Amino acid sequence: VLVMVSCHRPQKPNFIVMLMDDMGWGDLGVFGEPNKETPNLDKMAAEGMLFPDFYSANPICSPSRASLLTGRLPIRNGFYTTNTHAHDSYTPQIIMGGIPDSEILLSELLGEAGYRNKIVGKWHLGHRPQYLPLKHGFHEWFGAPNCHFGPYDDINTPNIPVYRDAEMSGRYYEQFIIDKNTGLSNLTLMYLDEGVKFIQNQTLRGQPFFLYWTPDATHDPLYVSEKFYQTSRRGRYGDAVRELDYAVGEILKTLKLLDIEKNTFVFFTSDNGAATYAKTSAGSNGPFLCGKQTTFEGGVREPAIAWWPGTIPAGQVSHQVGSTMDLYTTLLDLAGVKVPTDRPIDGISLRSTLVNNAVVQRPVFYYRGNELIAVRLGQYKTHLWTFTNPIEEFNRGVDFCPGQYIQNVTTHDQIHHDPPLLFHLGRDPGEKYFIKSHTEEYMKVLPMIQKAIDEHRKHMVPGEPQLNMCDRAVMNWAPPGCDKGDNKCLTAPPSKPHLCSWPH
Amino acid sequence: VLVMVSCHRPQKPNFIVMLMDDMGWGDLGVFGEPNKETPNLDKMAAEGMLFPDFYSANPICSPSRASLLTGRLPIRNGFYTTNTHAHDSYTPQIIMGGIPDSEILLSELLGEAGYRNKIVGKWHLGHRPQYLPLKHGFHEWFGAPNCHFGPYDDINTPNIPVYRDAEMSGRYYEQFIIDKNTGLSNLTLMYLDEGVKFIQNQTLRGQPFFLYWTPDATHDPLYVSEKFYQTSRRGRYGDAVRELDYAVGEILKTLKLLDIEKNTFVFFTSDNGAATYAKTSAGSNGPFLCGKQTTFEGGVREPAIAWWPGTIPAGQVSHQVGSTMDLYTTLLDLAGVKVPTDRPIDGISLRSTLVNNAVVQRPVFYYRGNELIAVRLGQYKTHLWTFTNPIEEFNRGVDFCPGQYIQNVTTHDQIHHDPPLLFHLGRDPGEKYFIKSHTEEYMKVLPMIQKAIDEHRKHMVPGEPQLNMCDRAVMNWAPPGCDKGDNKCLTAPPSKPHLCSWPH
Ligand SMILES: [Ca+2]
Ligand SMILES: [Ca+2]
Repeated sequence: VLVMVSCHRPQKPNFIVMLMDDMGWGDLGVFGEPNKETPNLDKMAAEGMLFPDFYSANPICSPSRASLLTGRLPIRNGFYTTNTHAHDSYTPQIIMGGIPDSEILLSELLGEAGYRNKIVGKWHLGHRPQYLPLKHGFHEWFGAPNCHFGPYDDINTPNIPVYRDAEMSGRYYEQFIIDKNTGLSNLTLMYLDEGVKFIQNQTLRGQPFFLYWTPDATHDPLYVSEKFYQTSRRGRYGDAVRELDYAVGEILKTLKLLDIEKNTFVFFTSDNGAATYAKTSAGSNGPFLCGKQTTFEGGVREPAIAWWPGTIPAGQVSHQVGSTMDLYTTLLDLAGVKVPTDRPIDGISLRSTLVNNAVVQRPVFYYRGNELIAVRLGQYKTHLWTFTNPIEEFNRGVDFCPGQYIQNVTTHDQIHHDPPLLFHLGRDPGEKYFIKSHTEEYMKVLPMIQKAIDEHRKHMVPGEPQLNMCDRAVMNWAPPGCDKGDNKCLTAPPSKPHLCSWPH
Repeated sequence: VLVMVSCHRPQKPNFIVMLMDDMGWGDLGVFGEPNKETPNLDKMAAEGMLFPDFYSANPICSPSRASLLTGRLPIRNGFYTTNTHAHDSYTPQIIMGGIPDSEILLSELLGEAGYRNKIVGKWHLGHRPQYLPLKHGFHEWFGAPNCHFGPYDDINTPNIPVYRDAEMSGRYYEQFIIDKNTGLSNLTLMYLDEGVKFIQNQTLRGQPFFLYWTPDATHDPLYVSEKFYQTSRRGRYGDAVRELDYAVGEILKTLKLLDIEKNTFVFFTSDNGAATYAKTSAGSNGPFLCGKQTTFEGGVREPAIAWWPGTIPAGQVSHQVGSTMDLYTTLLDLAGVKVPTDRPIDGISLRSTLVNNAVVQRPVFYYRGNELIAVRLGQYKTHLWTFTNPIEEFNRGVDFCPGQYIQNVTTHDQIHHDPPLLFHLGRDPGEKYFIKSHTEEYMKVLPMIQKAIDEHRKHMVPGEPQLNMCDRAVMNWAPPGCDKGDNKCLTAPPSKPHLCSWPH
């Protein structure tokens, strides 16, 4: 039956964005992970287009995800803090802010164009009712509004809820188990199942779909199901990667079985670099410097694969400098939807890259919180500022760059560099050897980058910062649906709004 | 004509060992080099078997190459020094030693079995007449006895000769140009041509062959021909890699054109890790620690690909822990030649790995000079000693681990660790997180490794050290053939043998 229905192909292509959590550039076999444990992703790359020069918009979860769905830098869409200069911020349970109504999300525009949209997995754009996915263009949701790390105590602090669409259907560590000791959990398999069923249903309906598939098994605490438990050569992190790789393979297989693979554009990437501070529980950023939380390449260079049999020729490598924000613009382009013109959009359409392997030069702006830290143009990257984390935190054992030390680069103070540091990422992907400022190369390149910076700053109107205010009263005490089934409504404490504290 | 002749396939397979110089594990696209500039090698891997856990026998040129051709560790075949504890040594022009007659070389055994053997490129097992390739089982040679770096002055010190078989046919920087400023040279193309012609001739002859193809364009000073000059995204090093990748593709294409690919076993690897101290002129060791000269993974983990259509199934990855010394044993096995039984051989046959992807556990012993520094067993690696280079040298700017620093690991003193340091290379390929000695894991694993060490030491009879004595009188003043053509015979100074000085 499915095959017959699928013959009536919708005109608009389907979209699947697979967004991993804290997975590093170097975690895929095809990007050099020595244990080569991602056969399905490696095959996806061989059948599609690999992007070694692809970036997330920010080195941590929430701002990165907000940017993917808005096509705009966190500094524009409000996913940053002004509490402390150049500090990272996200959406823990006590956050008051979230994705502003004024932002126009990819899901909203695709919905208007006739798509049915589902998010499977982590949202992370605010958990108060007005910020949830079904208020922002998604028709379906299975997953959680916040990250699945603690608390593990549902009295003083509520466990993270897992939603089915607009209502909570249980909580982590209660109805949705992640074993704290073993890391065993069926969540990735549930996310896989949710994704596959959505694809099947939409194929039956003959309605184009946007599946935003964002499992978080590679975010600490790492989890994996029995099937992949202790199967990796590199511990629990590798187990989680292997299960995700399996799930990716199953999703692509589903598309082929339903005969819709030629009408479905699939993109695989990650929200930020591997969380190197988690040591052997973290992924790999390959040859790049540092990791999550930083604007060095390890923080924002992402594994990225585009797959669309029949449209994207197999076995391509593109050195187009890409961004998760380009998914916004590209999907709209492919869907024939106009990109908003009333505001700056940072994404570009990758259509001609995907189809013709065209490469256009475009700058990458690396922000941390409210500060422009670095800029890439062509193969050059300049650091206006350098910063890892405060020395007090480092001395407590939190190391964003374990085993790596580069004088004047991996700094624990926020150092403003004037003249800026300049690196060539082609011959120096590890940002180890800065180009001296008196050289011909420096004097030729820096003015071009400076011009891009000036242009960028001229049009920069920062959005209202969403991640400044915190309040225990806004936690997930009583999400919608808490009065049903085994779910528990908890009593919120009195409201005490305060400035959030962001340690790095 | 060639096709007709090749129908009479010789019973014994042909062998091609492609040995790169100072190329790092991370330099191949398939091993994660971000610029993905090795399409032919990546294809070779896709058509064959990739070895992510493959090692050279030593972190520098001469000992590594001596081990490949003898199947034995440098400590056995004499390619080490006792002048200074645990110091690296090789065969510069002033070296008095070389490959001892008492060693039984792969070339000698294959020659006895009916093979015709040719070395194309760098020999590096001693340049005095008794040490040259045609005295050690090779029938043909085109290349140089020493490394192609300086001197660039043929009066006080002779330039390195380039041999055709038993006679010099010119010298580097004279008849065989490497432009010091641009790095332009046709040597890789000449080496390619020499290899292809040998393959063609042997196919016509119907005689099995062993081609030891060892170009050195990725060893400083890097060189490249016009065709690939400034074509890489990563500078001159990348240019050289691109040309070598092209040459590999041409050689495999030749085998297919001659229809002998199903009777030819090809193995691609490198003699030691990327020379990270050369900074942006060096290759990449991917996620591994340090580089050439050291016994960290960056010094000895090598890119490795086996290719033999019809015998090795396509698209395989083997986690067999392999060694360049296994080429000795494997080629003999495939040729039906008995491995010498009168001496310890460190290589094992990889036949069942190649054909059936079998994996056997075997230890790797990492030596530096005369000292056993580290041992790998399974996924564990233990460091008995740690050492990078002497602090005085480091303070002069010679850094074997640029941008990397691991306390108590990247030491400039020679530190003897008792209890030894233990790492798990699967979850910690960068040797960053040592497993504490009071843990269950440590207490379980270390005795197993200690047992392998005890066994190894019990049977260890060090060979006569070949790299202790130096003498300016033994330089390439008047190699055979210097009296012909434009070649110049120079006058040697009086003999003054002295202990060689090895800086690290
Ligand atoms: Ca994340
Ligand atoms: Ca070498």
